Amino acid sequence: MNYMLNNENAIYYECGYSCDNALYLSFGSEAYFITDSRYTIEAGEKVQNAEVVIDRDLYGRAVKILKESKVKKMLFDPKEWSVAAFGHFTENTKITFQQEPDFSHKKRIIKSDEELKIIAKAVKLGAKAFSKLAKEFQQNGIGESEFTLTYRARSVLGDYGKYDLSFDPIVALNANAAKPHALPTKKRMKAGDLLLVDAGLKYQRYCSDRTRTVQVGEKFTFGTKSTFSKKKIQKAYDVVLKAHDHAITKARSGMKAREVDALTRDLITKVGFGEYFVHSTGHGVGLDIHEMPYIASKSDTIIEDGMVYTIEPGIYIPGEFGIRIEDMVAMVDGKAVVL
Amino acid sequence: MNYMLNNENAIYYECGYSCDNALYLSFGSEAYFITDSRYTIEAGEKVQNAEVVIDRDLYGRAVKILKESKVKKMLFDPKEWSVAAFGHFTENTKITFQQEPDFSHKKRIIKSDEELKIIAKAVKLGAKAFSKLAKEFQQNGIGESEFTLTYRARSVLGDYGKYDLSFDPIVALNANAAKPHALPTKKRMKAGDLLLVDAGLKYQRYCSDRTRTVQVGEKFTFGTKSTFSKKKIQKAYDVVLKAHDHAITKARSGMKAREVDALTRDLITKVGFGEYFVHSTGHGVGLDIHEMPYIASKSDTIIEDGMVYTIEPGIYIPGEFGIRIEDMVAMVDGKAVVL
Repeated sequence: MNYMLNNENAIYYECGYSCDNALYLSFGSEAYFITDSRYTIEAGEKVQNAEVVIDRDLYGRAVKILKESKVKKMLFDPKEWSVAAFGHFTENTKITFQQEPDFSHKKRIIKSDEELKIIAKAVKLGAKAFSKLAKEFQQNGIGESEFTLTYRARSVLGDYGKYDLSFDPIVALNANAAKPHALPTKKRMKAGDLLLVDAGLKYQRYCSDRTRTVQVGEKFTFGTKSTFSKKKIQKAYDVVLKAHDHAITKARSGMKAREVDALTRDLITKVGFGEYFVHSTGHGVGLDIHEMPYIASKSDTIIEDGMVYTIEPGIYIPGEFGIRIEDMVAMVDGKAVVL
Repeated sequence: MNYMLNNENAIYYECGYSCDNALYLSFGSEAYFITDSRYTIEAGEKVQNAEVVIDRDLYGRAVKILKESKVKKMLFDPKEWSVAAFGHFTENTKITFQQEPDFSHKKRIIKSDEELKIIAKAVKLGAKAFSKLAKEFQQNGIGESEFTLTYRARSVLGDYGKYDLSFDPIVALNANAAKPHALPTKKRMKAGDLLLVDAGLKYQRYCSDRTRTVQVGEKFTFGTKSTFSKKKIQKAYDVVLKAHDHAITKARSGMKAREVDALTRDLITKVGFGEYFVHSTGHGVGLDIHEMPYIASKSDTIIEDGMVYTIEPGIYIPGEFGIRIEDMVAMVDGKAVVL
């Protein structure tokens, strides 16, 4: 199988190194990592199982290598390549390029033991950061805006510059938490507010992802047991937590992803909140924050040992509040293990 | 001229609003802003001169609108569209799609008075942040790693969560500064070190960009006058500053971009550092941090009033040190005005 990649994480997965200007070609027994001279030293030291080629004109060089190789067919992911970048190849070679959407994500769906260890460590560091953040918010968070709280979440999750983040953290209060992808506002946090935090960090390029929803009070941790003053919120929270726990307990290798999705959705729907659970139950996590498998109501993907994904049911009442509880699991010996 | 866009800044420029999931179509007297239901309220309030269309399937809806319009030809920027995204249109319509690289950047090359005001404000905020950062580094920077210093630069430039950054700041010491796009290392800052900081922030979505190089001592500001203990560094610094000042004084509307580039390059080359000035003199700045015009040795672009770009000559001696001094200018009444 011959293929070409230009996505940074896809390339990293192949050869253990990547940078922001690189192409990767693989055909027959040959593989090439093409980058520019800024990365000569690092690429030379770290790229495994591929020849490092330095050229200012990455595309021109890739075309040249392919022409000389006499390869006839190459796979590529059409989501990964711009029309302009791909055009270099179609205009300058006679190779047949076959679209293979999610090519790299499909290869990466089952994590190796080594990857599982790294991801587990990322999740552990993420959990520790949530504990620190709970303290930070209790001591210094009251009266601060979502903008400021988001900034602090970035700082604590990244351990003040030590780790990259999986994505820009979501810190949302009350009605703003009803938007699954809330952006921060000037609203300030006060005691009694509902507070939702969705955040993760990267360890050795692998992502963690976690969401907690709590009521702001004198003492709160970002555990999964939370108490709310308002009955409606407590009811919704209890359902979300039950759905979260149920899915983790009952998910099995061999199930279809939509069956895992149903484990949370059916419970939430039964209590009458179905229409307010507006997204999928979860998504795979690895080098990218969103990978396969997608734990969605229409997905026939078979869940297998070695897959890593989130369980993150939620209930979002527009204009009122939003609740989401998210943990990452790995499929081990047929069952879901919380990371 | 009919065209379609899917780049966030390109769309913002057309209609005053954008988000991370949007398409924009313009043909005849009609324009459509297509997004999903997460953005219904904001798009409805803020999109100007275009009809807001909400659909979960952005591409399907765009194809439908185009089919119904009976439009025959559309321009698009092949750098902006993935092969997969563009495929929705070629597979499902009979429209002729014409490649127009940098379509939106070309439209945006001359800034309006309103844009100039916003950019000037962004630069002013950026300059203030550099002053604060100088104090922060003097008081608390000695002994800290480039990682930590970069984290603090992010914090100060963003005013602790208030502003987005134009790009991840570069904070590089001594030999690491010899890489024009240095990544932070564990190296710790000490008195006497050469320190290069390249950073900017966004104000109302428009970017600022600035670089300063100083010797770490008891007192330093991020002004352009810097003193270095080592003669070779001082000599290089003085040449870079002279080249920077010369280009700002002599740049004129009506010149070709390569003539502006030559204003810095010729001076640096004359003193024997030519081979160490490894990049272009500057780049346009606006909604994107890198826009037109490119102030490069091969660019025939004519400089005009209303253009905004950086003047950032540099000298990079591998393994020793790097120097860069960068300011943003706007062309006003035929001359370059430092923002």
